Amino acid sequence: MKSKLIILLSCFFIGLSYGQIEKIEPPFWWSDMNHNQLQLLCYGKEISKYNVQIEGVTISDVTKTENPNYLFVTMDTKGIKPGNISINFKENDKVIFSQPYEFRSRRENSSQRKGFDSSDVIYLIMPDRFANGDPNNDSHPETVEKADRSNPGGRHGGDIQGVIDHLDYLKNLGATALWSTPLLEDNEPVYSYHTYAQSDLYKIDPRYGTNEDYKRLATEMHKLDMKLIMDYVTNHWGSKHWMIRDLPAKDWIHQWPEGFRRSNYRMTTQFDTNASKVDAKGCMDGWFDTTMPDMNQSNPLLLNYIIQNAIWWIEYADLDGFRVDTYSYNDKQGIAQWTKAIMDEYPNFNIVGEVWMHDQAQMSYWQKDSKIGAIDNFNSNLPSVMDFTLHDALMVVFNEDEGAWDKGMIKVYENFTNDFLYPDIHNILVFPGNHDTNRINEIYQGDIDKYKMAMTLIFTTRGIPQIYYGDELGMLGNRDKKGDGDIRRDFPGGWKGDKQNAFLSSKTKGGRTNDQEAFHSFTKKVLNWRKNTPVIHSGKLLQFIPFDNVYVYFRYNQEKSVMIVINNNTKEQKIDIARFKEGLKDFKIGTDIITDSNIDVTEDFTIKSKTSMILELK
Amino acid sequence: MKSKLIILLSCFFIGLSYGQIEKIEPPFWWSDMNHNQLQLLCYGKEISKYNVQIEGVTISDVTKTENPNYLFVTMDTKGIKPGNISINFKENDKVIFSQPYEFRSRRENSSQRKGFDSSDVIYLIMPDRFANGDPNNDSHPETVEKADRSNPGGRHGGDIQGVIDHLDYLKNLGATALWSTPLLEDNEPVYSYHTYAQSDLYKIDPRYGTNEDYKRLATEMHKLDMKLIMDYVTNHWGSKHWMIRDLPAKDWIHQWPEGFRRSNYRMTTQFDTNASKVDAKGCMDGWFDTTMPDMNQSNPLLLNYIIQNAIWWIEYADLDGFRVDTYSYNDKQGIAQWTKAIMDEYPNFNIVGEVWMHDQAQMSYWQKDSKIGAIDNFNSNLPSVMDFTLHDALMVVFNEDEGAWDKGMIKVYENFTNDFLYPDIHNILVFPGNHDTNRINEIYQGDIDKYKMAMTLIFTTRGIPQIYYGDELGMLGNRDKKGDGDIRRDFPGGWKGDKQNAFLSSKTKGGRTNDQEAFHSFTKKVLNWRKNTPVIHSGKLLQFIPFDNVYVYFRYNQEKSVMIVINNNTKEQKIDIARFKEGLKDFKIGTDIITDSNIDVTEDFTIKSKTSMILELK
Repeated sequence: MKSKLIILLSCFFIGLSYGQIEKIEPPFWWSDMNHNQLQLLCYGKEISKYNVQIEGVTISDVTKTENPNYLFVTMDTKGIKPGNISINFKENDKVIFSQPYEFRSRRENSSQRKGFDSSDVIYLIMPDRFANGDPNNDSHPETVEKADRSNPGGRHGGDIQGVIDHLDYLKNLGATALWSTPLLEDNEPVYSYHTYAQSDLYKIDPRYGTNEDYKRLATEMHKLDMKLIMDYVTNHWGSKHWMIRDLPAKDWIHQWPEGFRRSNYRMTTQFDTNASKVDAKGCMDGWFDTTMPDMNQSNPLLLNYIIQNAIWWIEYADLDGFRVDTYSYNDKQGIAQWTKAIMDEYPNFNIVGEVWMHDQAQMSYWQKDSKIGAIDNFNSNLPSVMDFTLHDALMVVFNEDEGAWDKGMIKVYENFTNDFLYPDIHNILVFPGNHDTNRINEIYQGDIDKYKMAMTLIFTTRGIPQIYYGDELGMLGNRDKKGDGDIRRDFPGGWKGDKQNAFLSSKTKGGRTNDQEAFHSFTKKVLNWRKNTPVIHSGKLLQFIPFDNVYVYFRYNQEKSVMIVINNNTKEQKIDIARFKEGLKDFKIGTDIITDSNIDVTEDFTIKSKTSMILELK
Repeated sequence: MKSKLIILLSCFFIGLSYGQIEKIEPPFWWSDMNHNQLQLLCYGKEISKYNVQIEGVTISDVTKTENPNYLFVTMDTKGIKPGNISINFKENDKVIFSQPYEFRSRRENSSQRKGFDSSDVIYLIMPDRFANGDPNNDSHPETVEKADRSNPGGRHGGDIQGVIDHLDYLKNLGATALWSTPLLEDNEPVYSYHTYAQSDLYKIDPRYGTNEDYKRLATEMHKLDMKLIMDYVTNHWGSKHWMIRDLPAKDWIHQWPEGFRRSNYRMTTQFDTNASKVDAKGCMDGWFDTTMPDMNQSNPLLLNYIIQNAIWWIEYADLDGFRVDTYSYNDKQGIAQWTKAIMDEYPNFNIVGEVWMHDQAQMSYWQKDSKIGAIDNFNSNLPSVMDFTLHDALMVVFNEDEGAWDKGMIKVYENFTNDFLYPDIHNILVFPGNHDTNRINEIYQGDIDKYKMAMTLIFTTRGIPQIYYGDELGMLGNRDKKGDGDIRRDFPGGWKGDKQNAFLSSKTKGGRTNDQEAFHSFTKKVLNWRKNTPVIHSGKLLQFIPFDNVYVYFRYNQEKSVMIVINNNTKEQKIDIARFKEGLKDFKIGTDIITDSNIDVTEDFTIKSKTSMILELK
């Protein structure tokens, strides 16, 4: 690996010529930013030998690294007006060359943009697998890997235009936010469709479209009152990133004597007071995979580079949130600074980090202002984490029929008993699966009753629901047995010529099958109800110990109460209303929003086996 | 249940006669106590009609309850001298009767007594099952249930004298502290041997001996530099307690309309912010069992009664610690006050609470000054809790041969990754089992190799090791399949005429079998080494991620380092010393205290399958 990298570097270096600048990043910036010490990365052959001067602008710092092709110029942008400035590169007081640099105007109230929150429902897609809106870009001369839809691990041609073309579908389903896995260029020769090994942080992969297309996606979504969440990767870049091929500094990435060392993935070493240094380093500095050099967020130049890049995308594409990949593998202090810098710029923004752990104290550790983090003098500044322990429970409970001491719905109940550990329980992602897990409908073998129970829970408990494209069709996919490709199948109808188009209703010829329609209509019904039911977004949760595998809870606020009953028992069960008095209060009628029927809640009532009810109380 | 209780109460009441006092509790007290507002419980027929006066003593409070047979008199004992005072019960200023009351001198430095700590190893016994030192008290006229050694759930005759007779055995084994399950009178007609349904809180059960015998046990132990830990029960009393039969107040215990309601045992309702009130009440106020009325620690009279009773036993019997039964079922604020009152009286005492939960944040919640408790504005004041999650791991890991992602030694390792959640990690009990669990040697089918690995861990990790009588003999016992009696078998040789006497070495005829001796000698060897190895008591822990089912950790301080290697793999494994440099430093030699052999730790070395090493580094 090491020798191969050196050869690549040499090839790349030869391409540079003197007396010119190859790149300045960020490519442009904005006036009136909170982040007003702008660090420009200037790249060009032996560019470090020049002095830099900008008319009328204070240069607060110039940093050179051991690589003469880089120059990091920090300017004070306070009071700078929109328009172009000229950056002069001098030798002996003589301007050798100049480079224009643009400052743009921010959109009104840009800094106050409101991120996604618990009033939203997030729809997660893998863009290569959702819809192919522009078949002309399936392969592209600038990128190596070409389209091959027959290969489960290959590129299938999905793109941004495909998403834009189907926003009506998402809107209609009741989704209010879109999380797309990464869209920035990933120029790996194989397996590039997942796009987590990025080769250019300022460029949408041309097989997905252009930067302008991405911006247009946000614009179109905002017209529909929907939000766009970018999947940001701080922990690693792709091996084909131009800077990886000509490193600004050896410590830009985490280096290993043997070239590549895989992370040990033991994230607990981030806080384990007993952990050895070698293990902690092995987790945080180890590489996630061979094609993913591990970035060193404790290098202030790198850290600032990814801070600015993140802010650039929010401002440029008008984003509503980030999902951050492998959040808890990053250098802890670095990622906390990164997160804080973004939240300082956009105080109402939202960022959810992937903290894939199986212990609530450990997950809470990573949420902003965590009292658990504080034990370790750590504050991530991260507003939102993912409820992976709920996911752990959801993967098994609907196959557990007996209401034993620790089986079935009690596992779900127990997940919520630790809510007090989280500093902000409403800002936590709840999900039945994602692009890295077995599909929920695979786990439950396409059993729609189990899907409905799982989704009733996801859609009505505290937090921000997130579903994975195709869940709403009963789509299957087994990662453990068949690999990533199986959980990332193409959305039927996303490609011209698909024999079926599940974007269309079952009433339309070639549209959803009756089975798919059943999944879809349930999902659509509950989501559209949820959209207009604030008590589900932010009401308090009141839960009761499950007996006989029946879980009853309420969401309530001063205006409204909703009673949710999930009967995971194989037999019909009676609901003893006396036991639930604290939630039922003096309500008389419960309107089941799933069946549109009314129930008298002043008397005991029954619920069928493997069924859920969502009762609006009146 | 309810009607039966009423009948019993009536019978009892008839026994009282006017103009006399039946009981004063505490029966005596001490001068110079920090707890100087002494609340005397005075009991006698219609005693509440009298006025109380004590010459030269300030009565700070007199409280009557709805039951006229009780009078609670609080006196200010500041400055009171050892000797007798006279309590006068008056009617219309005329003394109707007087009662002498004694104040004793405290032993020197009583308040500064040092409780058990991580330099100790606790040996847990059930006194009915350990040794029968006095066959004359096996049955006793004052108590209902008679001895029947043939009944696994009956009384077998073990007693305090039996323990005293075998202190040399414990000392020799290397145990330094004794936790005996309760010894106070339990006058239930059946199943009284476990003694958690106590009928008199100021009296040792006569089948175990007398109060004086208990005090003598402490004295004899102290002569051997050993410590005595009392098993204190705050949560419930026995149904035959004299006060239960004539309740001072209805709310002395938690009452239920139906007479008895079993606890739902969901202790998470103590902190679950989503929990319903009915469930929280159902846990904390529900009864642990039919014969165990649940005490109401939010009643200040009851709370003060058990505070004084606890202090009385420490002072009277010269105790070194408490183990508190079902700690997390108590009224939370009440038990915190109880604990604080004791620790205020004896700042260096130790109390370990039974908090049987399966989540470290939840267990940490209950330890003094927990940051987790603080989230809920709670501080239990409890110095020590039990490491039940380690126990969860220990019950399975040595049967898990594969070093998979989450199997085998990784489970043990992971337990320690959360140590930062505990406010005082050295004050936590680590144990392979107790009187409520399957025996460790049952789980591992008497496999001594697995016993040695488990015990290596228990004896050398952070915390206070506790073993259960008979573990050191390889004793079996399956609670799940055969019930409590099976894990509480008689210690062989504890009864005259036993065909085998395992208190004696295998070299003695009728002594330990060769198999028992193998368990015993290993235990004895490691414990006696541990006793004189302070780095194991309080040194830092440094642990390494297990690979191939091999767990390596160090205990170290400025003076000394010990390397522990547990190879749970079915094959011999190589120890790559480079990986463990942080712990090995520049040490040259490791002396395995199990085998007394030296190992060169400057080179890679091997460890046999299913084996452990404890290497003192030099």
